[in-house]
Amino acid sequence: MSTYTDQSAVTVLGLGPMGQALAAAFLDAGLRVAVWNRTPGRDGELVSRGAVGAGSAAEAVAASGLVVVCVVNYDASDDILRQDAVVDALKGRTVVNLSADTPERARETGEWAARHGVRYLDGAIMTPTTTIGTPDAVFLYSGSEELYREHRPALDALGGTRTHLGEDIGRAAAYDIALLDIFWTAMAGYAHALAMARAEGITARELAPFAQGIGAILPPLLAEFADDVDDGTYSGELNPITSTVSTMAHVIHTSEAHGIDAGVMRAAEGQARRAIGLGHAADGYLRVAELLGRR
Amino acid sequence: MSTYTDQSAVTVLGLGPMGQALAAAFLDAGLRVAVWNRTPGRDGELVSRGAVGAGSAAEAVAASGLVVVCVVNYDASDDILRQDAVVDALKGRTVVNLSADTPERARETGEWAARHGVRYLDGAIMTPTTTIGTPDAVFLYSGSEELYREHRPALDALGGTRTHLGEDIGRAAAYDIALLDIFWTAMAGYAHALAMARAEGITARELAPFAQGIGAILPPLLAEFADDVDDGTYSGELNPITSTVSTMAHVIHTSEAHGIDAGVMRAAEGQARRAIGLGHAADGYLRVAELLGRR
Repeated sequence: MSTYTDQSAVTVLGLGPMGQALAAAFLDAGLRVAVWNRTPGRDGELVSRGAVGAGSAAEAVAASGLVVVCVVNYDASDDILRQDAVVDALKGRTVVNLSADTPERARETGEWAARHGVRYLDGAIMTPTTTIGTPDAVFLYSGSEELYREHRPALDALGGTRTHLGEDIGRAAAYDIALLDIFWTAMAGYAHALAMARAEGITARELAPFAQGIGAILPPLLAEFADDVDDGTYSGELNPITSTVSTMAHVIHTSEAHGIDAGVMRAAEGQARRAIGLGHAADGYLRVAELLGRR
Repeated sequence: MSTYTDQSAVTVLGLGPMGQALAAAFLDAGLRVAVWNRTPGRDGELVSRGAVGAGSAAEAVAASGLVVVCVVNYDASDDILRQDAVVDALKGRTVVNLSADTPERARETGEWAARHGVRYLDGAIMTPTTTIGTPDAVFLYSGSEELYREHRPALDALGGTRTHLGEDIGRAAAYDIALLDIFWTAMAGYAHALAMARAEGITARELAPFAQGIGAILPPLLAEFADDVDDGTYSGELNPITSTVSTMAHVIHTSEAHGIDAGVMRAAEGQARRAIGLGHAADGYLRVAELLGRR
């Protein structure tokens, strides 16, 4: 197993759209790439570009010192990694699990890896498949910094910005979950806004440029609110939570007057009203962040 | 009342932070400005800069041909505008209501204005007070285009981009509600993400740069999804709704394992699961937009 610190070979397990993009980026960087997917037939394009299509996960693992896993979640990665033949092949090798799941599952997998002599890093991919191998990709990693440094030359082939968040193996997943929370909650708001717009005779294409404007004003506000949350200041001077609740009530009323499910905004409004009920009427909306976990 | 088409005079009713910013921008542009606020004592700075502090709403209205109203909602603007003395003073004058409320209330106010010989435009301000008078401000208007054109010279003094959305008086409010829906739902996601991050030992300032990254990738995706929604295509090839639901479940699990209220994401997940239940498992998440109003 003299290849296992060979930075010029990498195995990719899981060939969904993201796994294929990862394998393609490794090939583009001139690495030797072995690939495997549970359902056969996904490796054609990669093999035509020089990847080795392995007949089994264990065979794929044996081909490289670095094994990148990208499947739908940790149930799926457990199914692959926790077979006897694969565990045997993994001993002394490094697994970088880029599948998405909870911090809890990442930590549990880290413990499993330690028990079985598998070197383990957890990671998260924050950008779409089309960004992989480009400067726009964003990768988060956590776990042993030494191990991360050892494999950086190969991981750098994936492009974009790469951040090692710390030794806590669950930290990449924790960031991932928090960021996906923002993304998909925003998307839920967008889906609902498009439904309301349609009911008002406004097409999605008509609304989109203004929605993009909203998207553009978010980043500086997110930073400003982060300061509020860390400092425990939640100034409502310019925009108190009572004003937010008033807006939310307008959204709910308009939605339900059109027969459109306003459940997401109803939940958000309830949280904001609770903050007011707890004595925070003069604060800004982000006070809610402090209260969501408080009984 | 020969001044009532005088483009060099404007009245601002309502001197909250936004009303004050509007009046200040009119003063900066060299217009004669009359101001009034229900609660006295809010006009000091504006008067010191040359504004006329009126003793009553009717007196303020009589001072200008163009009356800009900016109060908390239409209950508040009704309280001001629908007094006999004010209605008398408004006859033949133009009201531009920049207060926020529902499209329904805007249309109802338009009907009231028509019955009372008041010329009426509805508007919405999409950006914070600090943008007023700067290129970053975004204003939406709806109602008579002729009336809008007549008052553009004065309204242009507020800066930024100004869009007349059509003759339907409710259209500016409809856009406003849809855009505020996106904004506040995204903020609800951010508040929840910050609560989860804190429970995982991640500060808001640590998360913020990555949250800003999420904010930055939204605009192009919003345009792409708008095409999907208008065209009735909802390709889930790269990211099917089943994958979105899996992510949402991870968020909910992590949140509730920390005792953090996941109500907003639970509502969003329920909507997405319903889309799957209705046979759209292979579609992208935005299929939800089409189903929210369907029983």
